[in-house]
Amino acid sequence: MFITETLIRVRYAETDQMNVVYYGNYAQYFEVARAESIRNLGLTYKEMESAGVMMPVVEMQTKFLRPAHYDDLLTIKTIMRELPVDHRILFEHEVFNQEKKLLTLGKVTLYFVKIGSFEKTVMPETMRNLLKPFFPEIN
Amino acid sequence: MFITETLIRVRYAETDQMNVVYYGNYAQYFEVARAESIRNLGLTYKEMESAGVMMPVVEMQTKFLRPAHYDDLLTIKTIMRELPVDHRILFEHEVFNQEKKLLTLGKVTLYFVKIGSFEKTVMPETMRNLLKPFFPEIN
Amino acid sequence: MFITETLIRVRYAETDQMNVVYYGNYAQYFEVARAESIRNLGLTYKEMESAGVMMPVVEMQTKFLRPAHYDDLLTIKTIMRELPVDHRILFEHEVFNQEKKLLTLGKVTLYFVKIGSFEKTVMPETMRNLLKPFFPEIN
Amino acid sequence: MFITETLIRVRYAETDQMNVVYYGNYAQYFEVARAESIRNLGLTYKEMESAGVMMPVVEMQTKFLRPAHYDDLLTIKTIMRELPVDHRILFEHEVFNQEKKLLTLGKVTLYFVKIGSFEKTVMPETMRNLLKPFFPEIN
Repeated sequence: MFITETLIRVRYAETDQMNVVYYGNYAQYFEVARAESIRNLGLTYKEMESAGVMMPVVEMQTKFLRPAHYDDLLTIKTIMRELPVDHRILFEHEVFNQEKKLLTLGKVTLYFVKIGSFEKTVMPETMRNLLKPFFPEIN
Repeated sequence: MFITETLIRVRYAETDQMNVVYYGNYAQYFEVARAESIRNLGLTYKEMESAGVMMPVVEMQTKFLRPAHYDDLLTIKTIMRELPVDHRILFEHEVFNQEKKLLTLGKVTLYFVKIGSFEKTVMPETMRNLLKPFFPEIN
Repeated sequence: MFITETLIRVRYAETDQMNVVYYGNYAQYFEVARAESIRNLGLTYKEMESAGVMMPVVEMQTKFLRPAHYDDLLTIKTIMRELPVDHRILFEHEVFNQEKKLLTLGKVTLYFVKIGSFEKTVMPETMRNLLKPFFPEIN
Repeated sequence: MFITETLIRVRYAETDQMNVVYYGNYAQYFEVARAESIRNLGLTYKEMESAGVMMPVVEMQTKFLRPAHYDDLLTIKTIMRELPVDHRILFEHEVFNQEKKLLTLGKVTLYFVKIGSFEKTVMPETMRNLLKPFFPEIN
């Protein structure tokens, strides 16, 4: 299992007139958390795109349990439970506020595809090698 | 069943460097489609909030089948399959492009809550009366 | 002078906890209004990009006189006072709400540049020919 | 003079199909930088709103010199050249990328207004006292 945590400060722009973070903005928080999760491995999503692989999102599920507010310092926990075996990769997210209250749950499935052709591919070898130590059971 | 269709033109701001609509922006499209769906009934979500009831989103599921592109004229189909019986309401969405290709599927669950207290409530009577004709089976 | 008007309905996502449209969202409204202004000429910005010319924004000035609110039906007036003579083009915008109150003023300067090289260029001939009738003084 | 610097990592959501940060997103960067500038003083904009004063933006000027790209680590320099004497306050911003290239210039004027009445007011005394040491010339 590969788990990382990312801090995000809620922007004014992200609130709506309900005085809470607009529900559509969590997708951005998940994106930032995924990118930081990958950066923690020692590579960047940007480098992956430069190497010809991109990761479009194909499915997302979100549960909104409690609202986040302006200036909250959110902790986004990102969990990869299984090492991908094909073109799919699943990230789970848990969003907590500064009082450790669980606000939101997310599950985001992405594909590995080749830039240009949009053809399905698998996780780049570099990324797989960096992830392997977190999944000792598969060796 | 209550079905409406809403047209949305994709903005440049809504694309990302993958040359497609950013996955997080569909939540906005669904919001616009819900609001227009309610407007078609003869009331507005704005009036509902003025009357003290608001509808926070508590759950969302989205499947991204095909990408939308800049300047696409999207049709968002909004479907209410059942007349709500408690504090919950479910909207289903289907996003089509101008070539009638199905791009995205969404399911959004909202609660009826009282403004101020955030206490759960039920669908306002006005809205229920306007919806009833679309659900003849329940009478 | 070439003047067009575009209608935009304010989305919930575009409000913030001040109960008004977030100041950063007017740039999107101006973008939509520019695109519709060009579409009124009989071509689209999308086609221009396909033809190898893009128009990055290089300068923007905005004055916020009165706030816009959720569900307001805004009229964005887009004014081109002069036919561009070099790589620059200036659009002026006036945002009105449904009560004809002037809310916002904008001035947006863009460049014509070649896609790929980012080299400055001039307005495509097609666009110039479509605009000429609106500027009889220059003939 | 009161100067602060804030780091912002460019999100994928903030890019557009020109492969650069969408011009409309700089207003958010400026907002974050202003909020962090105030936090550096030892208070927060959130506390100001809780104390009954809010700061709507009334004017913004932006010059886009060079594009920012996905994953860039931007430094937003925020400069207050003068201690406000009435209901107006001016923040100037300079956006640099990780190669110290100047990308964007911004000037944002805000008003101090009372929440509820929207009546103009002056900078709260707490904020003024925290700022005074940075403007020795006015004593």
